[in-house]
Amino acid sequence: MMLFRRGIATMASVKRASKIVCIGRNYADHITELNSARPKQPFFFQKPTSSILLPGEGPVIRPKGVSLHYEVELALILGKRVRDFNAQDEQAALDAIESYALSIDMTARNVQNEAKKKGLPWDISKGFDTFLPVSKVISKSAIPDPHKIELYLSVNDKVQQNDSTELMLFRIPRILSDISKVMTLEAGDIVLTGTPKGVGPVVPGDVMRAGIRVDGKELEDAKLEVA
Amino acid sequence: MMLFRRGIATMASVKRASKIVCIGRNYADHITELNSARPKQPFFFQKPTSSILLPGEGPVIRPKGVSLHYEVELALILGKRVRDFNAQDEQAALDAIESYALSIDMTARNVQNEAKKKGLPWDISKGFDTFLPVSKVISKSAIPDPHKIELYLSVNDKVQQNDSTELMLFRIPRILSDISKVMTLEAGDIVLTGTPKGVGPVVPGDVMRAGIRVDGKELEDAKLEVA
Ligand SMILES: [Mg+2]
Ligand SMILES: [Mg+2]
Ligand SMILES: [Mg+2]
Repeated sequence: MMLFRRGIATMASVKRASKIVCIGRNYADHITELNSARPKQPFFFQKPTSSILLPGEGPVIRPKGVSLHYEVELALILGKRVRDFNAQDEQAALDAIESYALSIDMTARNVQNEAKKKGLPWDISKGFDTFLPVSKVISKSAIPDPHKIELYLSVNDKVQQNDSTELMLFRIPRILSDISKVMTLEAGDIVLTGTPKGVGPVVPGDVMRAGIRVDGKELEDAKLEVA
Repeated sequence: MMLFRRGIATMASVKRASKIVCIGRNYADHITELNSARPKQPFFFQKPTSSILLPGEGPVIRPKGVSLHYEVELALILGKRVRDFNAQDEQAALDAIESYALSIDMTARNVQNEAKKKGLPWDISKGFDTFLPVSKVISKSAIPDPHKIELYLSVNDKVQQNDSTELMLFRIPRILSDISKVMTLEAGDIVLTGTPKGVGPVVPGDVMRAGIRVDGKELEDAKLEVA
């Protein structure tokens, strides 16, 4: 359904992931738009590494009967093992990050809604093959402050998501702390930091374009285009 | 809290897993004991590879405030990539299996119940470090028919679980088919096939012993002892 038009990067650091952990409900306006409850603490789920779609690897496949939603998210790629991390230690959190990527947490929204209603796991709704398009790896130096960048996503050139990571409810040190108190994060693991408001459906033929602006300037490596 | 007493095996094929996928509610009497709904089709969730506890690696750690439950399960270790698998093809399913292991799907039951009530993911309740004790790798030839073995688990020498894998609601070909229609399974990936009735809590000091009987005979490599 969707096609990457950008060149293929060597994505060694993305393919190294032993797991992908994603924060849910980390932007207030996105919680409101889905009528969800605001979490008192970060909660998270996994996407399988088999869901990664590298630049140039082809379209996102929409499974039959699925209402397919996009969620643009900043992804952290870790450079070291993180365990029982202290949320107060902002510097150590940034030190644990090796690089970044832009990602789209594709979600089978109807499947997820059904799972929520029945108290079932989210793994099917989040885990189909191709459900995690990622950009090229973004070098750490390109993002001096991950809490102060703009994420955007457009569908057929209409901007649907466009917000600053300043709006995160739980910031990166807290996220890494909470995850790593449950599961040890390994070097190479990927953490998705949640999506701002504006999520919505895409259908075959739609073109998603996503990117990051730092101080108003477009980051070349973050550009993601999927048709 | 619990300690493996058996020798350390070289667990190359377990550590190779890029993901661990677990079937929920696959034995009727276990569904009844948890007051769960019987699924019309297999559903599944992931445990992170960081939750694996190899023989000799030490105790299962009970997180503070957690009601820790055991669930003994037969684990399949795949020998090839499985994708869009045909559930009718029993032979191909068995061909995809490289070896087996016995495993205990440790579960933070109170955390899971809370997640179910709120429609949140199961990942935290299933994903703590040490929440997946596994036996040595069991060679394929030791289990001629995976649907005809006995799984058992005792706590402090009291047998709590003891049932035949004949009782699986969804058999292995169907399980591999349903999972692989969502997420491609890679060589080395691990699939847990569900737990029979008898799950329950363990507390510090308890000793769990689990094993497999084939035609009434104990499988030496399947013996699992965690204190
Ligand atoms: Mg998301
Ligand atoms: Mg994984
Ligand atoms: Mg289980």
